[in-house]
Amino acid sequence: MTGDDRFGCNRHVTLPGPLRLDGGVLLSPVEIAYETYGSLASDGGNAILVCHALTGDQHVASTHPRTGKPGWWTRMIGPGKPIDPARDFVICANVLGSCMGSSGPASVNPATGRPWGMAFPVITIRDMVRAQAMLLDHLGVGRLKAIVGGSMGGMQALSWTATFPERIDAAVIIASTARHTAQNIAFHEVGRQAIMADPNWQSGDYYGGEPPAAGLAVARMAAHITYLSEAGLTEKFGRRLQAREAKSFGFDADFQVESYLRHQGLSFVDRFDANSYLYITRAMDYFDLAEEHGGLLANAFRASRARFCLVSFDTDWLYPTVESRNIVQALNAAGAPVSFVELSSPYGHDAFLLDAPEMNRVVDGFLRGGR
Amino acid sequence: MTGDDRFGCNRHVTLPGPLRLDGGVLLSPVEIAYETYGSLASDGGNAILVCHALTGDQHVASTHPRTGKPGWWTRMIGPGKPIDPARDFVICANVLGSCMGSSGPASVNPATGRPWGMAFPVITIRDMVRAQAMLLDHLGVGRLKAIVGGSMGGMQALSWTATFPERIDAAVIIASTARHTAQNIAFHEVGRQAIMADPNWQSGDYYGGEPPAAGLAVARMAAHITYLSEAGLTEKFGRRLQAREAKSFGFDADFQVESYLRHQGLSFVDRFDANSYLYITRAMDYFDLAEEHGGLLANAFRASRARFCLVSFDTDWLYPTVESRNIVQALNAAGAPVSFVELSSPYGHDAFLLDAPEMNRVVDGFLRGGR
Repeated sequence: MTGDDRFGCNRHVTLPGPLRLDGGVLLSPVEIAYETYGSLASDGGNAILVCHALTGDQHVASTHPRTGKPGWWTRMIGPGKPIDPARDFVICANVLGSCMGSSGPASVNPATGRPWGMAFPVITIRDMVRAQAMLLDHLGVGRLKAIVGGSMGGMQALSWTATFPERIDAAVIIASTARHTAQNIAFHEVGRQAIMADPNWQSGDYYGGEPPAAGLAVARMAAHITYLSEAGLTEKFGRRLQAREAKSFGFDADFQVESYLRHQGLSFVDRFDANSYLYITRAMDYFDLAEEHGGLLANAFRASRARFCLVSFDTDWLYPTVESRNIVQALNAAGAPVSFVELSSPYGHDAFLLDAPEMNRVVDGFLRGGR
Repeated sequence: MTGDDRFGCNRHVTLPGPLRLDGGVLLSPVEIAYETYGSLASDGGNAILVCHALTGDQHVASTHPRTGKPGWWTRMIGPGKPIDPARDFVICANVLGSCMGSSGPASVNPATGRPWGMAFPVITIRDMVRAQAMLLDHLGVGRLKAIVGGSMGGMQALSWTATFPERIDAAVIIASTARHTAQNIAFHEVGRQAIMADPNWQSGDYYGGEPPAAGLAVARMAAHITYLSEAGLTEKFGRRLQAREAKSFGFDADFQVESYLRHQGLSFVDRFDANSYLYITRAMDYFDLAEEHGGLLANAFRASRARFCLVSFDTDWLYPTVESRNIVQALNAAGAPVSFVELSSPYGHDAFLLDAPEMNRVVDGFLRGGR
């Protein structure tokens, strides 16, 4: 480990593995790209693992080396924030299957010397968690003061408490769910079909050539709608036209919302690998924590010793409050301590990434409560 | 006019035009494909125009000549139904811009002798209505006992009462809206971008070659999700797997909802023209009845002499009840007689096309009320 602990740096480890995946495959080696902030206390009691969402990365609290953008959750992590590197040892790892340095379809398949493509094994949320556990072993982190995640990050946090119950003291699960619904799967399937319909996809074997950019952009556009609330879209764009005064009576982006979506699609293509999008959406669709535990969600938490904090947002229609409530009920049934709050926000699912002082107060209070 | 009045037949008229479109273009000729059921009364007082939705057609109450499927609204129109050809003279025309026989991008451009493609002028809901009015003139129908439509059909019905107020005695508007919201536009834009991203689209000049089937299928899949409620999807599919017993850990359709969506996309390609999808979604996105009337929706109804009946469905998140309520409030402000009911259904927006005895009772009572 080298680099500046205050601002994070580009860390990467190749673990020999093998990692046994839920699909039965043994993956080896297991590469993990990660960042850390702060220092591990001598008693090891200050480690917090932050888990990122579908298209997120390990640069949670430091500038992204390629885009130059600030870390994606500096509102939550930083000096004076609920998670503070001056006190906490913060770890964030790029998930298995992604494309920011951890093993994924764009990584080199050691058997061929070429990118895996669709030969990369299908992974699950639990596989991501197992890879993170290997990283913690490597870092000498035994147990976690807290595991924290929003959206798919929350799925990982839930899976952590079920898979490694002895290692988790507290779990913060924000705007998340214990299973993907038919509608969640349907939206992801649209995105996957958009990618696979792009002739450049070439059955996933496009590395070295043109990527399926058009398909990936459409996938992102469809998904992006689910991240925003109807009210938020109306507030932000309504039916306002672009700079031009009147409708063009053509197919250019007349409405601001069209232009915004097109931009979201196009800029995503620059930073994300289409195959990774296929693999990670698949992992999310497969996620059903109850199913992994005999069909009863409470069973997932029987061995847990963690305190839980759940936060939902009232305008989140991707993972609406009812999904958090289902988790809370299962935790209650399992006798796990849990605090739950539904926060009000106009911004839909994306609210957890935006300025949300109430969320920060809730998380701050919860994390302090355990000390 | 030839054919069997009882069951409808393939009717088509070429009107010389020109039709002045909202975009300023003069369209000529104007072809309209339509069906009629029943006979026009000697006093002309029994004509009902039924308007179809985005991907609908004129075969509202009779077997589709190509697919062999029953008419799309035989639950509403037929012997003993709220609209009964034994009593009513029922007309349904394929909308301008569509691909079932009315003028649209797949029609021949008389200036070139080849299909219009993207040279077809962009149209509006009001343009569709004006073309329908030309058809009524041709058929010798002066005024309408009722205009009836669901979804985009409801937009046309609304536009009819504003554009030809003297010709409408009653209007039934089901699961519809007076304007497309930012979220409505966003979903349509995803579909358009999916079509345009398909290399076979060829800037709309694909006739005679391969159509942009993959892009159109993705567009349909995305739209289809908005036609169903989350609860309906859960009830119908949940997380149930396909015939196979367990997850495949691959990218085949594991979940029933994936297979269903793929089927929806693929079967749509056989019956619909991609360019028509672009043009009609554009017309819907442009629709804002208030904007056409000085920004105040009530103004649209000032000249109306019609009775109105509005129906919404509680699980319709495409055009939710609040949109119908906005229309009702505007009608109240304009002093127009209106009855409104929100019906309960698990099926979301699509409910208006399905078995809905309550909807039938409401429409039946409303139409009888005027006699």
